[in-house]
Amino acid sequence: MTNRKAQPGAQNIIIAMPGNEKFAQQLAEKGRYSHATLEMRRFPDGESYARIYSDVSGKAVHLVCTLAHPDSQFLPLAFVADVARDLGASEVHLIAPYLSYMRQDKRFHDGEAVTSRTFARLVSCVFDSLITVDAHLHRYSDLSEIYSIPAQNLHAAPVMAEWIAINVNTPVLIGPDEESAQWVEGIAAVCGAPFTVLRKTRHGDRKVSIDVPDLSLWKDRQPVLVDDIASSGRTLIEAARQIAGQGLAKPDCAIVHGLFAEEAYAELSSLAARIVSTDAVPHASNAMSLADIILYAIKRRAIQPQAH
Amino acid sequence: MTNRKAQPGAQNIIIAMPGNEKFAQQLAEKGRYSHATLEMRRFPDGESYARIYSDVSGKAVHLVCTLAHPDSQFLPLAFVADVARDLGASEVHLIAPYLSYMRQDKRFHDGEAVTSRTFARLVSCVFDSLITVDAHLHRYSDLSEIYSIPAQNLHAAPVMAEWIAINVNTPVLIGPDEESAQWVEGIAAVCGAPFTVLRKTRHGDRKVSIDVPDLSLWKDRQPVLVDDIASSGRTLIEAARQIAGQGLAKPDCAIVHGLFAEEAYAELSSLAARIVSTDAVPHASNAMSLADIILYAIKRRAIQPQAH
Repeated sequence: MTNRKAQPGAQNIIIAMPGNEKFAQQLAEKGRYSHATLEMRRFPDGESYARIYSDVSGKAVHLVCTLAHPDSQFLPLAFVADVARDLGASEVHLIAPYLSYMRQDKRFHDGEAVTSRTFARLVSCVFDSLITVDAHLHRYSDLSEIYSIPAQNLHAAPVMAEWIAINVNTPVLIGPDEESAQWVEGIAAVCGAPFTVLRKTRHGDRKVSIDVPDLSLWKDRQPVLVDDIASSGRTLIEAARQIAGQGLAKPDCAIVHGLFAEEAYAELSSLAARIVSTDAVPHASNAMSLADIILYAIKRRAIQPQAH
Repeated sequence: MTNRKAQPGAQNIIIAMPGNEKFAQQLAEKGRYSHATLEMRRFPDGESYARIYSDVSGKAVHLVCTLAHPDSQFLPLAFVADVARDLGASEVHLIAPYLSYMRQDKRFHDGEAVTSRTFARLVSCVFDSLITVDAHLHRYSDLSEIYSIPAQNLHAAPVMAEWIAINVNTPVLIGPDEESAQWVEGIAAVCGAPFTVLRKTRHGDRKVSIDVPDLSLWKDRQPVLVDDIASSGRTLIEAARQIAGQGLAKPDCAIVHGLFAEEAYAELSSLAARIVSTDAVPHASNAMSLADIILYAIKRRAIQPQAH
């Protein structure tokens, strides 16, 4: 699959995997792309069924599927990608605003699966390219270390900065950890706001100890917690609690990927002024749209098909 | 992966995927193989975590995972297979007593995904070989048409015949459809019993019309419905109803793969004398063990590594 050449001239067509209809619709409307009709359902035994009703022959198919539930999503994705190719699609691309399996990026303990590598290998077997947003690059410096297909990793920072600039008076930005300092600084610069970062120590999947630095300098500012991902939500919940403890206003939370496992959203809601997320993962908190940056990336790929 | 040569001398080690511990234990005990310890769990965001605690270096790993829930099982399987290889396993084989995605074996309607091909391609990317039992071969004559790795398709008929011969007095066997006539005839011959088959017309995923032939010749015999798979259970339920309508005893049901979606088992239980299945899919009805035939296949593969 990886040897197919992108054809800059191919007409674009969007296919939404279940749950991604709203985002896909935005892309189709804003990009003036056609939108294929997909039927996906499960047989009584749990196997997936997929059928494309539109003509994809000779077209560049963009399959939209944010990967917040990767284990149950992967085979259906592969089925749709393969049938699109069977039906004559000249290219089949994955648009996954949230890219899963980026966090197990080394063998932390003997015998552990490095799931990021396996997942990347399998996705690279199925698609011609990948577009995602703020993939969790920690020990990998670039997606090309594990993805053998062209993979664009876009940045939501400008979209976050715009939301904060418009919606928050006199903010102070607080990033999730020391590694994020540069990222937070960039957002803060656009908003003309000061910033700081949490000191974070992780003790397990659900346990993390957080230290909020002294915020007394900014006690009249509106704290804005920014983070690339909220899953268990422990970081944001603990930070929000400590911010209140320092006598500041309840923080706003601006998040790229709002996964909100289990009770995370309910718990954070009681401690935060506002919680907003990008539409990378469909959620009630979505308030920032990534459609424009993704459309730009689709167009850039069509111009420079070889670029990673 | 597919180019690795099987090493007949490699020591065998069994790894059970979650839910397959009992069957794997039988294989390990009967085959005198070692049994690796696997930790599998999910992070709060739904991603899988896998860790092998045993030394698999230089060994032939047999990963036991019946594929009754393929969509959620595939990625975890790939993670364990890959980490086994990372840890030095010389071969990684899949033992899937039930093999999923065999029924969508052609494009029945325009635009449909032929999921059997995609699934076979992905499994072939991950494993060195496959052992399964009574894979649903309808339009494919052999697994090698879609699997690029050596794939042994074993037959449960001898195990079924043995159970019937021991447990049913004066049976008459009834197969699921005309295509199964030869299969049922073989089982009936071993039991020294007469047989017939249903006439079956499928109208959709859940709708099937069944005609039970005239059984008046055998009205003093115990009817035994035999089938390779019970999923929605419609065939067996409708046949059991018609058998009762002809004034025969409630039938016994002997099934290779007891998937029993939704209420199928409860409904069938009210119409059948006994329902028994092989342990291909773990279920309360398991009464026939496939461990011996699978062990035989493991040994045969070690002797003839090139054989399909």
